[in-house]
Amino acid sequence: MKKVRIDQLAELVDGEIIGDGSLEIQRLESIEAAQEGDITFLVKPKSIDLLEQTNATAAIVPLEIKKSGKPIIRVRNPYLASAIIHNYLLEKPFVSQGIHSTVIVGSECKISEEISIGPYVVIGNCVNLGKRVTIGPGVYIGDNVTIGDDTEIKANVTIEYESTIGNRVTIHPGTVIGSDGYGYAPDEKGCHIKRPQVGTVRIDDDVEIGANCCVDRATFGLTWIKSGTKIDNLVQIAHNVVVGENCLMVSQSAASGSTIFGRNVVMGGQAATKGHVSLGVGVMVAARGGVTRDLPAGGLFGGYPAIPIKQWTKAATAFSKVPELRKEVRKLRNEIEELHKKIMLDD
Amino acid sequence: MKKVRIDQLAELVDGEIIGDGSLEIQRLESIEAAQEGDITFLVKPKSIDLLEQTNATAAIVPLEIKKSGKPIIRVRNPYLASAIIHNYLLEKPFVSQGIHSTVIVGSECKISEEISIGPYVVIGNCVNLGKRVTIGPGVYIGDNVTIGDDTEIKANVTIEYESTIGNRVTIHPGTVIGSDGYGYAPDEKGCHIKRPQVGTVRIDDDVEIGANCCVDRATFGLTWIKSGTKIDNLVQIAHNVVVGENCLMVSQSAASGSTIFGRNVVMGGQAATKGHVSLGVGVMVAARGGVTRDLPAGGLFGGYPAIPIKQWTKAATAFSKVPELRKEVRKLRNEIEELHKKIMLDD
Amino acid sequence: MKKVRIDQLAELVDGEIIGDGSLEIQRLESIEAAQEGDITFLVKPKSIDLLEQTNATAAIVPLEIKKSGKPIIRVRNPYLASAIIHNYLLEKPFVSQGIHSTVIVGSECKISEEISIGPYVVIGNCVNLGKRVTIGPGVYIGDNVTIGDDTEIKANVTIEYESTIGNRVTIHPGTVIGSDGYGYAPDEKGCHIKRPQVGTVRIDDDVEIGANCCVDRATFGLTWIKSGTKIDNLVQIAHNVVVGENCLMVSQSAASGSTIFGRNVVMGGQAATKGHVSLGVGVMVAARGGVTRDLPAGGLFGGYPAIPIKQWTKAATAFSKVPELRKEVRKLRNEIEELHKKIMLDD
Repeated sequence: MKKVRIDQLAELVDGEIIGDGSLEIQRLESIEAAQEGDITFLVKPKSIDLLEQTNATAAIVPLEIKKSGKPIIRVRNPYLASAIIHNYLLEKPFVSQGIHSTVIVGSECKISEEISIGPYVVIGNCVNLGKRVTIGPGVYIGDNVTIGDDTEIKANVTIEYESTIGNRVTIHPGTVIGSDGYGYAPDEKGCHIKRPQVGTVRIDDDVEIGANCCVDRATFGLTWIKSGTKIDNLVQIAHNVVVGENCLMVSQSAASGSTIFGRNVVMGGQAATKGHVSLGVGVMVAARGGVTRDLPAGGLFGGYPAIPIKQWTKAATAFSKVPELRKEVRKLRNEIEELHKKIMLDD
Repeated sequence: MKKVRIDQLAELVDGEIIGDGSLEIQRLESIEAAQEGDITFLVKPKSIDLLEQTNATAAIVPLEIKKSGKPIIRVRNPYLASAIIHNYLLEKPFVSQGIHSTVIVGSECKISEEISIGPYVVIGNCVNLGKRVTIGPGVYIGDNVTIGDDTEIKANVTIEYESTIGNRVTIHPGTVIGSDGYGYAPDEKGCHIKRPQVGTVRIDDDVEIGANCCVDRATFGLTWIKSGTKIDNLVQIAHNVVVGENCLMVSQSAASGSTIFGRNVVMGGQAATKGHVSLGVGVMVAARGGVTRDLPAGGLFGGYPAIPIKQWTKAATAFSKVPELRKEVRKLRNEIEELHKKIMLDD
Repeated sequence: MKKVRIDQLAELVDGEIIGDGSLEIQRLESIEAAQEGDITFLVKPKSIDLLEQTNATAAIVPLEIKKSGKPIIRVRNPYLASAIIHNYLLEKPFVSQGIHSTVIVGSECKISEEISIGPYVVIGNCVNLGKRVTIGPGVYIGDNVTIGDDTEIKANVTIEYESTIGNRVTIHPGTVIGSDGYGYAPDEKGCHIKRPQVGTVRIDDDVEIGANCCVDRATFGLTWIKSGTKIDNLVQIAHNVVVGENCLMVSQSAASGSTIFGRNVVMGGQAATKGHVSLGVGVMVAARGGVTRDLPAGGLFGGYPAIPIKQWTKAATAFSKVPELRKEVRKLRNEIEELHKKIMLDD
């Protein structure tokens, strides 16, 4: 493990040190579990008491905290700074394990020398693998697949033919890239004639895809996940979807066929879209939101059909009051009938 | 690649040619991507302008279009006709790759000579594989499994013991067929005693199942997917479900234990059923519908609990108005109270 | 197959025999499929007619049934008793298949002699496997994983490094244990910086996990599934979740990051929780419930946001009446306006 001086860590995140910056750090740990030699982090100023209780040697803290009994690195965004420092502490040079003797490689493949391919991997023909690629056990990579530098494909992933995967991509176990999109034409008898799915999948740099996800190939053209997008487990990306840069898709969410996401779209857990809709830049769909129409940039939406989140929150709260609302309306009806009668009598 | 005359293609779909039917076609492409030598298709008559812009050599068009600068095949249903023609153009004779040297086969298996079994496949005892079956890398097939002719099992699929799979079935990567149904009996202490799952799975001809799906074996008897049904990715089929002929189940939908679907049922994305319900022939459940009771044939349903789709659409629209409805009812209440007082005073 | 006398079976479940207890039984079957030599079971007293029609040799019945033409075992809970008897009849001694010649094992592993490891399994360094463990084909087990006695890992499962799995655990095919939690820190440009996921997963005794599930490792610390919990297919367990003893999670349900379940919590199909909420002992969340706040022990909840189930059921029923409620309120408004006018005129 690396040993790094606190002042070096502070420099990484443009932080201000209060206390002894010359101490050396090996690990970043949570505030409860941190031990001597560790750095930890505090996100909320009001949790300052935890700072004095932790065994950590040093801490990354928000600007509101100005002093402490131990060295602190003051930063605007401790959540972000701690992620950057943690990554730095864990960073290791790539160690090539080579190609395991059980790996089966097709013809006309280009595979970098700096590579780690685990046991029982099967690689088709005309596959290109970049530098420092790591491929876990049991992975299948079809013909004409291209994978960029520093990408990691975990165990038991399947990548179907002609998919293109960028640099620094991570794909977690069990995920399937490039299987057929779901498209059929019904005939007169109600049988479903398969539409051939002849498009491909393109995944750009710095994308991360969770475990047991599905990214379908396009019917024609491209299913495209743009750079920096991070996808959780069990997510469905249908044929011809375009996911913009730096989007987030939380677990069990789905983008139906031909959906287009601008950059920095967020889909909450189990949220989904109808096919062929567009979500503008920065749209956030709350957990389980169901998008049925195009959504303008920057909006927050929830519910199904998805509406502006404030409106949805109010309606969802009012929803449980509908039964008593019905009762009240029935009472009003009766009272009005009686008023009618009364006025008639008066007349 | 095949070269086929336009008039031959027209014959396949009972279409009428306008223009030179003797030209030869190699590929079917989308209207934007088509190049010389390609045929394309147009679904909506109003998109006729695209027809003149495309580089395609020919096009399949709806009957409303009666002429064009290029050869056209006029058909009632261009979406269907283009699927039929596309399949025809892509059709290839099966080329047996044989059984890869790393395949492990149990005892008493019957495996056709015309077969392609990829690397690192493991096949149990007493397995029957029909003609022209293709099995991808890393597949596991348990004891006593039977697979019909022309079926394709993609990479990393698991088929548990005693499952029966028909002809021309396709199962996409990562899908699990025949794992245990979810059944427990709670004891007095709140522990869950597993009910043994001793039934099997039967999948009939021409079924297609997407990636990372689960089809559980029956508790007793059969979980049964009937012929022509097409299932998208990440779909759950629980123990003892019967899915009728030519059903569609869109991504992330689910059929709970002992659900019965008639033929041509459609389950939209993320739609689900309670256990033990029956859906009549042709029932369509909209995306995220939640079926809690038997549904009559031919109906369209949505919402949870699922109600007729028109009713649901109205209610879902009105839902966002509930907060202002409550305000209005409060106002009415106040006004009525005042009317009461006023009339009292008048009396 | 075992042959067991009816009176021996009755003893297992503390049941009372009416009829000849000396007959021998080999199988337990459903009441429709049972044949001579089988025992069957009846859950509902009103289905007593089935008892006389079945070909079974004997039956497990509820106390309400007091006599029959065939031997019966009378018990308080026939559903539970039949599960216990069924398991007993199917119980087989573990037969060690050993380690298949194709298995790749890292260094410093401790593997019991009584073991069955199937073909093409890959095992990392420092892995401990207990007695009578069964590992299916294509499984990958990372470094420093520990697996207890009598545990079964089915085909194509992936268990990432440092996971700990107890005794008598079953994990069904395609499931992924210990892949990275979903955690990122957004920077000023809207890029998502990965938070290293340095925690682990712990799965206690007698847990069963369905097919194609995901159990993420903790960011720091532990993702923990406690003893006796049973999880269906396609379920998501996020980083740092704690699932208590004897919980049930039905298919496609999800526990978001840092959710805490007490013991005997039930999550219905597609139900989910927001991150960082606590569900008290015995909480039941109906299918598709969405939990957004802490829930007290013992409650039944439904809807999203989840509310008490009775309230939800009423509201969900009333929901479809909202459009006519709006109409009625508009009518009331008009009538009140007229009453106002009338009274004004009268004045």
